[in-house]
Amino acid sequence: MFKANPNYQRLQGSYLFSTIAKKVAAYTEANKDADIIRLGIGDVTQPLAPQIISELHKAVDEMADASTFQGYAPDLGYEFLRNAIAEEYRQRGCNIADDEIFVSDGAKSDSGNIQEIFAADSKVAICDPVYPVYVDSNVMAGRSGNWNPDLQRYENFIYMPCTEENNFTPEFPKENPDLIYLCYPNNPTGMTISKDKLQEWVDYANRIGAVILYDAAYEAYISEPDVPHSIFECEGARTCAIEIRSFSKNAGFTGVRLGFTVVPKELKDADGIALHSLWARRHGTKYNGAPYIIQRAGAAVYMPEGQKQIREQVAYYMKNAELIRTGLQDAGYTVYGGKNAPYIWLKTPDQMTSWEFFDHLLSEVNIVGTPGSGFGPSGEHFFRLTAFGSYENTVRAIDRIKKM
Amino acid sequence: MFKANPNYQRLQGSYLFSTIAKKVAAYTEANKDADIIRLGIGDVTQPLAPQIISELHKAVDEMADASTFQGYAPDLGYEFLRNAIAEEYRQRGCNIADDEIFVSDGAKSDSGNIQEIFAADSKVAICDPVYPVYVDSNVMAGRSGNWNPDLQRYENFIYMPCTEENNFTPEFPKENPDLIYLCYPNNPTGMTISKDKLQEWVDYANRIGAVILYDAAYEAYISEPDVPHSIFECEGARTCAIEIRSFSKNAGFTGVRLGFTVVPKELKDADGIALHSLWARRHGTKYNGAPYIIQRAGAAVYMPEGQKQIREQVAYYMKNAELIRTGLQDAGYTVYGGKNAPYIWLKTPDQMTSWEFFDHLLSEVNIVGTPGSGFGPSGEHFFRLTAFGSYENTVRAIDRIKKM
Repeated sequence: MFKANPNYQRLQGSYLFSTIAKKVAAYTEANKDADIIRLGIGDVTQPLAPQIISELHKAVDEMADASTFQGYAPDLGYEFLRNAIAEEYRQRGCNIADDEIFVSDGAKSDSGNIQEIFAADSKVAICDPVYPVYVDSNVMAGRSGNWNPDLQRYENFIYMPCTEENNFTPEFPKENPDLIYLCYPNNPTGMTISKDKLQEWVDYANRIGAVILYDAAYEAYISEPDVPHSIFECEGARTCAIEIRSFSKNAGFTGVRLGFTVVPKELKDADGIALHSLWARRHGTKYNGAPYIIQRAGAAVYMPEGQKQIREQVAYYMKNAELIRTGLQDAGYTVYGGKNAPYIWLKTPDQMTSWEFFDHLLSEVNIVGTPGSGFGPSGEHFFRLTAFGSYENTVRAIDRIKKM
Repeated sequence: MFKANPNYQRLQGSYLFSTIAKKVAAYTEANKDADIIRLGIGDVTQPLAPQIISELHKAVDEMADASTFQGYAPDLGYEFLRNAIAEEYRQRGCNIADDEIFVSDGAKSDSGNIQEIFAADSKVAICDPVYPVYVDSNVMAGRSGNWNPDLQRYENFIYMPCTEENNFTPEFPKENPDLIYLCYPNNPTGMTISKDKLQEWVDYANRIGAVILYDAAYEAYISEPDVPHSIFECEGARTCAIEIRSFSKNAGFTGVRLGFTVVPKELKDADGIALHSLWARRHGTKYNGAPYIIQRAGAAVYMPEGQKQIREQVAYYMKNAELIRTGLQDAGYTVYGGKNAPYIWLKTPDQMTSWEFFDHLLSEVNIVGTPGSGFGPSGEHFFRLTAFGSYENTVRAIDRIKKM
């Protein structure tokens, strides 16, 4: 008789956001008048920019006329979009060709699928705390051992703690990994990596023959000069790095779905096999291209007016981040992130656990955030707040915390 | 040093459509005035129906306003769409719950990804000829042996020939498979399976403990009464079948990207593990939902006006199919399909190979079709024409063939 993929049985429940939802529901049930402010989930709230809306309408009209109707898109993305994306890289001094851009339906899909082009016995290194998709997709592929409940970790993975001590940038692991997941600006800590430090990682990966899977979904939020927007700003990255990008946070596409992955043609494994051709084959076999109208919306992001509008939107969220960061500092909290990312990573007061602080914040001032321990054991005693709320709610939330 | 997935090295080049493109390019280069008519690729040509266009515009406007803006969609699809889809099943007498519908970006993605929730050593049975995605996705997952160039087949797969002798419906294989891919109405043959025959397959799968992965992407083209629209019309299918559906061919969504998969909750493996929860977990980890505006477009398909409009569109293509089918018969060809599917599967004359006939048709009457051998060795001496061209071109193409 047929058997289900046994690796799925190792997966732990994804309880974080469902537990949060249950706790909030229970609280509101018991306190019907509670005016809850949600700064938990990383979803945007501002509407799409006018230039994007206008390109969407135009593209929809094209689909209504046989002479401009678009059927199957090119598997790897329309040239108009791949060119706009690659051009931005080139303007930043990164040597990226149009056909090294693979357009997709978002960074989550690409983050989850990218492991598939690597051998099943690849050794995987991930940060702790971490975005769960990197972990779970490798568990599903059989690269982990069992879950160790005492350590709150899977066996066989290399965990790289990101803590106050190392300024939330991991050290090179003791054991050599094949795949290294890095995400900067970081979710959940909101912290960055300096260009020099990232260059060290690139050199390390080239030296040991590893691939860095670099998630740069939050690059639009970078405000400081020494922070790299792309791993391809580093010398040698073309032989050791893949970069994953999203339109979700820079342009509010969480419900529109568009992203891309950059795979340089020089990136080859021990036997000289080019990952570029494997990823192209994967796209061609299991994906049929992002919708035409959505790719037109993506292209709007690179138009002068679109650029101006999305920068205003990012500035709106970063004003919230600044408000949260300085507000919490004024209230006596130790705070990280929020300068180059829409996430604020605060240390819980009085040695409270992350979940104790969650309950405290919910019951005392009706604010919902995300317990840091939900992202990994090194997130314990931390708490994530996001800048994606409305300005008005963010102001009210910080006032409440200050008065607490 | 890191290693690429070695299974990808077993994949054969996907030369079919690129070889066709090269041959056509070479011919047009040598014959600049040639008036080529393309009846090769299965892409639609008619614009989206007015109801769909109107819902798209409405949804785009919702994205422009903070009060109606949609961020992350529910992983498995909006309830408004899942309900509309499940309701159609229920009206057809199939017992399907809303939450057994998993909305996705299309049948190609689902066809390629579904194998992932099964054990790596699952035995796979596929038809010959066949849609290449079923084959290639299982090769990538390591379920095949090497390619055997003499047989033009992969080792370890169970191939089920679909031939004139069995009316293009396969016999039960000698060796018991775990996974059985069936596609009806069929691509490439355009042939169907009767309800009785499909019931036999369902009984067989339940008996041996196999899962049928049923691709019903072309169900909207069924015109005859005894042809099942869904495998869930058969008794017992809920314990042995998954159904994959598309909006590409019934509503012209090839460039819009929307599909869904039905996984009944009773479907459990040898250890009692429910595939429903595994597929949900896969969606939740590696996918972030279809775009809101696209799901609204999908819902338009189920509105009364939308239904009327897409039926007219299907009728337009089926008029082409009828024209091709009867025209070829009049010209003395042996012809299959085209009654309940937009594909016509013709037998090449004079024992020509599929590629000889391709060259013949291209050079004699400037018509491009698809060689049957490209879909598998049992497709040799057959040739696929599609009904997705414009009516005018289809008329001209058949006139040319008749005069040939």
